[in-house]
Amino acid sequence: MSWEDNVRKVTPYTAGEQPKGRVIKLNTNENPYPPSPMVATRIYDLAQQELDGVTSMLRKYPDMDAVPLVDAIVRVYNEQYFPQGDGLTFDNVFAGVGSDDVLFTAFMTFFNSDKPIIFPDITYSFYDVWAQVHRFPYRMIPLKDDFSIDINDYLDTENGGIVIANPNAPTGEYLDPAELEKIVKANPDSVVIIDEAYIDFGGESCLPFIKKYDNVLIVQTFSKSRSLAGLRIGTAFGDEKLIRYLKDIKFSINSYTMNYPAIELATVAVLDTEYFNETVKRVIKTREWTKEKLKELGFIFGDSKTNFIFARHEKISGEEIFAKLRERQIYVRHWNKPRISEYLRISIGTDEDMKELIKALGEIVK
Amino acid sequence: MSWEDNVRKVTPYTAGEQPKGRVIKLNTNENPYPPSPMVATRIYDLAQQELDGVTSMLRKYPDMDAVPLVDAIVRVYNEQYFPQGDGLTFDNVFAGVGSDDVLFTAFMTFFNSDKPIIFPDITYSFYDVWAQVHRFPYRMIPLKDDFSIDINDYLDTENGGIVIANPNAPTGEYLDPAELEKIVKANPDSVVIIDEAYIDFGGESCLPFIKKYDNVLIVQTFSKSRSLAGLRIGTAFGDEKLIRYLKDIKFSINSYTMNYPAIELATVAVLDTEYFNETVKRVIKTREWTKEKLKELGFIFGDSKTNFIFARHEKISGEEIFAKLRERQIYVRHWNKPRISEYLRISIGTDEDMKELIKALGEIVK
Repeated sequence: MSWEDNVRKVTPYTAGEQPKGRVIKLNTNENPYPPSPMVATRIYDLAQQELDGVTSMLRKYPDMDAVPLVDAIVRVYNEQYFPQGDGLTFDNVFAGVGSDDVLFTAFMTFFNSDKPIIFPDITYSFYDVWAQVHRFPYRMIPLKDDFSIDINDYLDTENGGIVIANPNAPTGEYLDPAELEKIVKANPDSVVIIDEAYIDFGGESCLPFIKKYDNVLIVQTFSKSRSLAGLRIGTAFGDEKLIRYLKDIKFSINSYTMNYPAIELATVAVLDTEYFNETVKRVIKTREWTKEKLKELGFIFGDSKTNFIFARHEKISGEEIFAKLRERQIYVRHWNKPRISEYLRISIGTDEDMKELIKALGEIVK
Repeated sequence: MSWEDNVRKVTPYTAGEQPKGRVIKLNTNENPYPPSPMVATRIYDLAQQELDGVTSMLRKYPDMDAVPLVDAIVRVYNEQYFPQGDGLTFDNVFAGVGSDDVLFTAFMTFFNSDKPIIFPDITYSFYDVWAQVHRFPYRMIPLKDDFSIDINDYLDTENGGIVIANPNAPTGEYLDPAELEKIVKANPDSVVIIDEAYIDFGGESCLPFIKKYDNVLIVQTFSKSRSLAGLRIGTAFGDEKLIRYLKDIKFSINSYTMNYPAIELATVAVLDTEYFNETVKRVIKTREWTKEKLKELGFIFGDSKTNFIFARHEKISGEEIFAKLRERQIYVRHWNKPRISEYLRISIGTDEDMKELIKALGEIVK
């Protein structure tokens, strides 16, 4: 007997490499563009505020409900998703330290069942890690051969909870909300989490579901479409009751998860919808250009509606292309896992990044 | 059967009120002084970096190991605690989103036992919340009547883990490291967590234990002595093996918990040891002045080595004083809990804050 017997042992999630120095970094789905310039302006304000000692906000605990941020989210999302009114209220929104924090807390809150949580075999690889760390049973349901989800697998399967990433990662496959709605409807006794990390790059959000169903949680992030991976901002939307349960668990873990700069800077970022729309459009345009070029080079891939493309080459192995890109200081993501080892997940960078990528791939596949 | 049956239900921790506007706020143990001026300077640098779009760091994921911060902590703590060398390495240090995040993660990592976790009946009120949320058994051991810890209660009691805050909160009682060492030695099969949130205000840290024992974790925070409650920075120190287990769980929850501003600003703050020493001295001086004045007014309290005083009045009830201070826009902390309902926890503010407090208390007790 030793204290080590009581240690919770896990196989942690492996994040993408973070190489230093001048490289082309297309391996962690970061946005190639900086966040809204309002963010930099707000940072100046914060510096001024701190310099004037007595007005320091950093010495105080941050707002534990992230009120300014949640208020801003309600305003902006209501304009976008509920222009006819009857939209979100403060109590429909949860904010956390990136969507990972939000999803971890949601797993912990909603999935305390003896029945397995179900999700696709190929999806965001944190789902099974979270199930393991909480010791929840789980079952991974194989995607079809073309990597699409067969929604019939989720309509009549006993489960203690469901998680679907839409668009899915790392495949980029997108499901129409009408399809997902069937899953939500068929499982009134389970919470269905829809992870929309990449939804802003061309998909249609399931956000309106939360007004019709009390068993669906929509999770989003500021790390991709809002260029704020470095601030760690994630959100969840749901029925008031669902959000209240989620907050109870959050306040049983850490009263103050979001620090003062995160709340302040995310608030100005979300309010700048013009910048958001413009940069999202640029990423989509670059993605479509990249798709064309990849096709010309013999790559095969689905119709990604994300800020990445999940592609394999018709002749050359994923591992080989990955290694040869790396030699050229170009980083993409590759997994040595069943079914996807031939694939590369290529984040959409700037036009220049993608031109260099295509040039390098041209040399490699020649 | 409904999805609500699978919800993890808890009674969340209740944090101190955060009143807005011009009040004297002595209820959450924040530091009355701003953080090191190096922090404001660094915020300016960050603003400049972000303005120059292409150098944006906020668009990228932060350093998941918080390397600059941990390196700075190792340097500063080695100078302070291990001047003779053979001190901390990178692998002895864990950093998280406030000591709450660090402690929650430590509970989750180390306390997976059928035997109860043990801690005092009067202590930081998150300990039992964390035990409950993880569904770990726990047992609260009564403090002595004078609120001191009888270490004999911890030497021969079967347990699945031990947590001691030193100095204890909200009592302010301090135990000599030699006493705590007996507890660590007597429990080689349990992890002993020593929560040193308030240690910098006059106590001696147990940090050197980590070089002698592999079952002790020392937890500290930047929220009190380093004036950075708004940034959410907590640390843990332990044997390399212990820290590795802790990191495995952390990386099974969220790869990137500390955002970029937190890492950058905490790094410059910890390096400014001169400012740290000076502000800590000021808080201690104000505390000692406040003790004298409180004594003159008929208050009874122990010898606090923290940035608060836990006091009751010889004649007037805690509830009454609390209410009357509040009428005067002075906020202190009061709990309607057994054994401590007559007490107020008064954070140490500026000299001006404390003069106003003493004046108000003079009127109330007259």
